[in-house]
Amino acid sequence: MLSDVEIAQAHQLQPIDQIARDAGIPDDALIPFGTTKAKVDITKVGESHREGKVILVTGVSPTPAGEGKSTTLIGLTDALKLKGKRAVVALREPSQGPVMGIKGGAAGGGYSQIVPMEDINLHFTGDFHAIAAANNTLAALIDNHLQQGNSLGIDPRQITWQRCLDVNDRALRNVVIGLGGKAHGVPRETGFTITAASEIMAIVCLATSLEDLKERLGRITIGYTYSGEPVFAHQLEAQGALTALLKDAINPNLVQTLGGAPAFVHGGPFANIAHGCNSVLATSLARRFGDIVLTEAGFGSDLGAEKFFDIKARFGELDVAGAVVVTTIRSIKYNAGIAREELTKDNVDAVRDGISNLERHVDNLKKFGVKPVVAVNLFTSDSDEERAWLRSWAEEKGVALAESEVWAKGGEGALELADAVLDNLVEGQSQPIYDPADGIEASLEKIATTIYRANGVEYSAQAQKALAQIKANGWDTMPVCVSKTQYSFSDDPSQLGAPEGHTLHVRELVPRTGAGFVVALTGAVMTMPGLPKVPSANHIDVDESGTISGLF
Amino acid sequence: MLSDVEIAQAHQLQPIDQIARDAGIPDDALIPFGTTKAKVDITKVGESHREGKVILVTGVSPTPAGEGKSTTLIGLTDALKLKGKRAVVALREPSQGPVMGIKGGAAGGGYSQIVPMEDINLHFTGDFHAIAAANNTLAALIDNHLQQGNSLGIDPRQITWQRCLDVNDRALRNVVIGLGGKAHGVPRETGFTITAASEIMAIVCLATSLEDLKERLGRITIGYTYSGEPVFAHQLEAQGALTALLKDAINPNLVQTLGGAPAFVHGGPFANIAHGCNSVLATSLARRFGDIVLTEAGFGSDLGAEKFFDIKARFGELDVAGAVVVTTIRSIKYNAGIAREELTKDNVDAVRDGISNLERHVDNLKKFGVKPVVAVNLFTSDSDEERAWLRSWAEEKGVALAESEVWAKGGEGALELADAVLDNLVEGQSQPIYDPADGIEASLEKIATTIYRANGVEYSAQAQKALAQIKANGWDTMPVCVSKTQYSFSDDPSQLGAPEGHTLHVRELVPRTGAGFVVALTGAVMTMPGLPKVPSANHIDVDESGTISGLF
Repeated sequence: MLSDVEIAQAHQLQPIDQIARDAGIPDDALIPFGTTKAKVDITKVGESHREGKVILVTGVSPTPAGEGKSTTLIGLTDALKLKGKRAVVALREPSQGPVMGIKGGAAGGGYSQIVPMEDINLHFTGDFHAIAAANNTLAALIDNHLQQGNSLGIDPRQITWQRCLDVNDRALRNVVIGLGGKAHGVPRETGFTITAASEIMAIVCLATSLEDLKERLGRITIGYTYSGEPVFAHQLEAQGALTALLKDAINPNLVQTLGGAPAFVHGGPFANIAHGCNSVLATSLARRFGDIVLTEAGFGSDLGAEKFFDIKARFGELDVAGAVVVTTIRSIKYNAGIAREELTKDNVDAVRDGISNLERHVDNLKKFGVKPVVAVNLFTSDSDEERAWLRSWAEEKGVALAESEVWAKGGEGALELADAVLDNLVEGQSQPIYDPADGIEASLEKIATTIYRANGVEYSAQAQKALAQIKANGWDTMPVCVSKTQYSFSDDPSQLGAPEGHTLHVRELVPRTGAGFVVALTGAVMTMPGLPKVPSANHIDVDESGTISGLF
Repeated sequence: MLSDVEIAQAHQLQPIDQIARDAGIPDDALIPFGTTKAKVDITKVGESHREGKVILVTGVSPTPAGEGKSTTLIGLTDALKLKGKRAVVALREPSQGPVMGIKGGAAGGGYSQIVPMEDINLHFTGDFHAIAAANNTLAALIDNHLQQGNSLGIDPRQITWQRCLDVNDRALRNVVIGLGGKAHGVPRETGFTITAASEIMAIVCLATSLEDLKERLGRITIGYTYSGEPVFAHQLEAQGALTALLKDAINPNLVQTLGGAPAFVHGGPFANIAHGCNSVLATSLARRFGDIVLTEAGFGSDLGAEKFFDIKARFGELDVAGAVVVTTIRSIKYNAGIAREELTKDNVDAVRDGISNLERHVDNLKKFGVKPVVAVNLFTSDSDEERAWLRSWAEEKGVALAESEVWAKGGEGALELADAVLDNLVEGQSQPIYDPADGIEASLEKIATTIYRANGVEYSAQAQKALAQIKANGWDTMPVCVSKTQYSFSDDPSQLGAPEGHTLHVRELVPRTGAGFVVALTGAVMTMPGLPKVPSANHIDVDESGTISGLF
């Protein structure tokens, strides 16, 4: 069997200017990066017509078995293209840190990939690096301000701005900087996050223009003075330079699916520790140049999808016309507590026991006003009995369901799914779940009880203090971006299935005034991952001609 | 008067594929980055014919007044082009850290610039970011190895590999990482260098192919075991992944001068804290596609030029056909001890007193077997008397000298200089100053006494220990890369002019087995700069259309 990278390398890509021309993108808006990647200059495409219907692809609670969410999205796009629809992908960019860590990219798989997958998974057009450069330039300006006399009176113990890098590097989570004496900075505790979790990533994903980008960068809160007043990036005169560093990164990237559909791949916040969707600008371009836009929210309805409706769709004024919940029979069984090595064994009882997780995700999506379609990403180990049970469950519950085989068959494997999606479109009915005007506590309460099915929310002493400060600064009406484990509806990753009656533990609240939301850190979720015992980096290689191997 | 960025923005650039076609670069070797920048795929240009004659442009000891070395090089190239020569530029890429710090780019100035200058000064094609990503991935693999059981027995106190970033951030010079408890790494002291000073930057600049790159990456020494054995990157199985991260960065970048000459701009090691020249591959491509190649070595004959002959020309098997020493009358006066604010006042005596610095640089270059030409970069404040005295000095000493006005006039301002350069070409005579086979102490002694005119070399206790370790590991016959202040021939930045009889203080020796040299740190030179009181970042801005201002 060919690996993903081998399939991608064997494929004859269309020139990217051909893809762009077919999509109707003006020639002078296309900025080529080689012959198969490009950026699209947002200042040269004019106003969006906002035509394309947005379909949100999400999944069940992820399991070690993998669900194939992006793969399904890409296969579905190619299926819609086969049916004569002008279908366009809007996806996040992969983060390089995890590419070096745990096997598994973010460009689909098998015969449902976006290409060139090696480039997309490594550096791509440099957006993550530009974001890190802007992030770390701001950090350098902050520490330089301390060093040069600290005229703003910034309290080094209350600087909330962290540095970032696109690596999985747990040793950078907690660091002390500025050591070595007077000439080498002011010693203080701080840390690094992964770039995907940084506020500037969120800002790039939510900004609607260069002007909006600059304004958001200026209003970033970097910390507090000794007297407790917030300090903003514009007080360090940083916003112009940061915008200059991001002026190319804000332009969405254009690549293609193996089926030849245009794919805007732009922005990459993680969905557990950040808001988890591609940029508003990429979705907006995709809508301008497509009839149907396939976009993804990371992880399940409790993470990516909730933040998609409550943050991205709100800020980007997006109507969502449909939703797909990707699942596998193996995932359903895993959610019934079946061990990983037993998942390929026929077990209808386990499907019945684990269905609660899928059911909960379907229910949650309905709350956002859409009619979800379940996509069952088939594996050869799925038995006829398991498949039949699942179909009868859907029929009984009145849930639209379609099986798909996108890994092996590409678009041809998702024709039935494409029909189901087209049959379940709605218009003007999508909605957020809470009103930020009611305050952060009310918003969190709503998310916790309605989506997570918790009994309530508990705040740590630290979170309570932060909440008081947020209220005092008038930031209490921003939406909430919950950082939570992806493995459970609760904040405890071991609670599989569809837990109820638990408590959501908020340990910290971080105002992100540039992004325009407050991050609620729950449970033990880290904003900087680590590498595993045997990192995938150990298996990646390049031959003399520059051909990469070992990348999935 | 227009600023550099305004002049550059007003210029109508030629499409980069036109520049490439005119230079004879095969179409399929060109990887466009937008319409005015490209990379040239080294795997698609075939073997180099090694035709072009290499002219090394260097300068006097730099002063706060500025000399205009790159500006002269670019103007000279355009002058040679006006004379019908196929002249090609090979220059280093600017580092973004200093761009945000102290006003002054690395893309020339006035009417002698390489363009698009904003892009070249910010991110460019992402090479620095790719180098930092590779560097920091290796760092993450090291700390992960400690965390996962440390089967190689690496001593955390003897890890020499540092992280890097392309920022001026003094607070990162000395840090403690891995804090926060067992799940967050092994606590240890370390630091960050600026990307330009990292070993991977040197490796990218010295590698001759992807294969050579991978081999060099594998033989990087990352530190030592508890029993004192060196640990190499290949023991962490890192070289494949690092090569994958660098497979695009190794391809030289192609841009153009304002006069329309092709310019390979690739690699950017600083010359005070690293080896200071553009990549061997860029020079090699420039030689293949040009009759005359204008290349630069950072700072004066004691830094960039010495390392050009002793490291780059040696590894790249380059014959150097000529050399230009760029000076200004203001610099000569500054070297006589004249205060900065007095430099624009007519003062022939000061020119006479300060000439020793220029003379020393000219002498030094002769030792490398070339016939140096002095380029006097004219300023309006230079008096007729000062200019006359300088010309008579040159005549008396038998030194070729030409005045130039490249900032204001571009190539037209360097026609006389172009003639002088063409009149002083040599062939097969260039040579290094020492033989690495004699050992590091002999090499350092030779550089110190012959080029710096020191009486001798003193090693700190730490350097002596490092030397013993270097000898024990059989690394004693690698060339030496001296890290020294650029302001003086000595290691004391306050000793201007042409000091003699001083002592070179070597405080540390760092083997860079991947690059293939040993770094000798002298004096108090830092491998991570800081930002000034008012960073240039404060003045950089972007308007709605994406046009940058405040960048020089």
